[in-house]
Amino acid sequence: MSDFETDRRHAVSRVAALFDDMLQLPDGPESRLVEAMRYTALEGGKGFRPYLCYAAARLFDVDEKNAIHAAAAVEAVHCYSLVHDDLPAMDDDDMRRGKPSVHKAFDEATAILAGDALLTLAFEILADEATHKDLSKRLELVTTLARAAGMHGMVGGQMIDLQSPTLDLDAGGLTRLQKMKTGALISFAVEAGAILGAADEAQRHALTGYAHDIGLAFQIADDVLDVDAASADLGKTAGKDAGQGKVTFASLLGAERARDQAGLLVEQAIAHLAIFGPAADSLRQAAEFVIARHS
Amino acid sequence: MSDFETDRRHAVSRVAALFDDMLQLPDGPESRLVEAMRYTALEGGKGFRPYLCYAAARLFDVDEKNAIHAAAAVEAVHCYSLVHDDLPAMDDDDMRRGKPSVHKAFDEATAILAGDALLTLAFEILADEATHKDLSKRLELVTTLARAAGMHGMVGGQMIDLQSPTLDLDAGGLTRLQKMKTGALISFAVEAGAILGAADEAQRHALTGYAHDIGLAFQIADDVLDVDAASADLGKTAGKDAGQGKVTFASLLGAERARDQAGLLVEQAIAHLAIFGPAADSLRQAAEFVIARHS
Repeated sequence: MSDFETDRRHAVSRVAALFDDMLQLPDGPESRLVEAMRYTALEGGKGFRPYLCYAAARLFDVDEKNAIHAAAAVEAVHCYSLVHDDLPAMDDDDMRRGKPSVHKAFDEATAILAGDALLTLAFEILADEATHKDLSKRLELVTTLARAAGMHGMVGGQMIDLQSPTLDLDAGGLTRLQKMKTGALISFAVEAGAILGAADEAQRHALTGYAHDIGLAFQIADDVLDVDAASADLGKTAGKDAGQGKVTFASLLGAERARDQAGLLVEQAIAHLAIFGPAADSLRQAAEFVIARHS
Repeated sequence: MSDFETDRRHAVSRVAALFDDMLQLPDGPESRLVEAMRYTALEGGKGFRPYLCYAAARLFDVDEKNAIHAAAAVEAVHCYSLVHDDLPAMDDDDMRRGKPSVHKAFDEATAILAGDALLTLAFEILADEATHKDLSKRLELVTTLARAAGMHGMVGGQMIDLQSPTLDLDAGGLTRLQKMKTGALISFAVEAGAILGAADEAQRHALTGYAHDIGLAFQIADDVLDVDAASADLGKTAGKDAGQGKVTFASLLGAERARDQAGLLVEQAIAHLAIFGPAADSLRQAAEFVIARHS
């Protein structure tokens, strides 16, 4: 098992244990909400974003407990975004991670509320002392996550994505969409590690450059995967984007050139990590993983 | 014009100016999202919660700019909750504040995203230096809001409310629902003032007692209003709760006893304010306003 794979599994299991603890079922009828939160946050995620946070933090010898708390906040936001994106009024996906989406397993109202509560939980976690004893770091995490996830980041990107069938986006427009919709949270995952670790400017710049490149490579690989894969393998309804008339990197560049582009981005991402030496080997493997998924 | 009315209008206009500044329309296609956020956050709210934050903060001579930032965060959360609650999968209200709900004026997807972005914005505001120079106060605001708005607070309350037609709630159960669904955010509005003002324990206790009582009185009055009022006057679809088979204070107690109960709660709320002397006159009037609405 590679370093990356070991680290990813470790981060996933630590984050799951934290969610298990935080999402104890309450006594009242609101337990249905917490069940839905557990359904999405505790089961089946690959944990790529929590891994990134954990691995980036480790470059600076951040206390593991701190890193896992920040990683859990990232995963909570990721899960909320999936739950809301899957809703009938949004991307209308019935399957997610190989099982029914939250609005199918529960109902639409519960899915909306579970997403809302997970987003709220993310900020509660970041503001908690367990995330770091240094107040200014916790505040920087809150601010940086809010910007990455909000109207100028992830949510704004999703707004563009929903309109994309009528937008006639070119590669520049599609890159901007991706940067907001998926790149911003991937960047935050890595930046959270840098914030916790009090990275210097060069280190932080290297990490955000890395995150930017793997974020884009991830999306390109996803687009190619969306075209290639059968529903059963992918665990979500495949071929969806093309069916909705959305422009994708695969449709703009063709699958072959898209794959090449993703490969170049991964090389570039790895080049950013040079200043960290062998300590960043796991993150280098993670970059390779981003495009290896679709082989 | 009463002190309360002057103060409320002042808080509303200052918060609106802040939102106007924060919600500048971006250049890209995500501007639709920001338009929807402006539609709900800038137009037509009574601003009761922002007022409470502003008036509570003034008891402690908090810098007005600080108070208005916290008030804006409270209003952002309130607006997000209305936008999501109005969705077809939730309470399915086509009208809000005398105009079409966000999902009618825009569409469901935009409404979901506008709510998400407003919730995120609330935390960004609280973590910002403009809310207070003291880091620990900003963190306490973030934590306190997350708890008030999340699974054990507002969102949990909404989850119970949605199930309430099948729950056969008694007065105790309904009070718990209200405390979570609407009381928690009203309490936060007042607590935010206390946090900014470094209130001592007795002062904070007095203010949370006040908030608890007016929160419950507010809901009881709302239930009576829901039964009494015609759609046109209320600006939202009236008689809705009863039509959905939801238990309300009006249906449990009868309108007459419910009104009496609300009156008692307002007296109790005012009694809590004794330690602040005449400085709390505006908040006393606010408590009266809560039940005067339905006459």
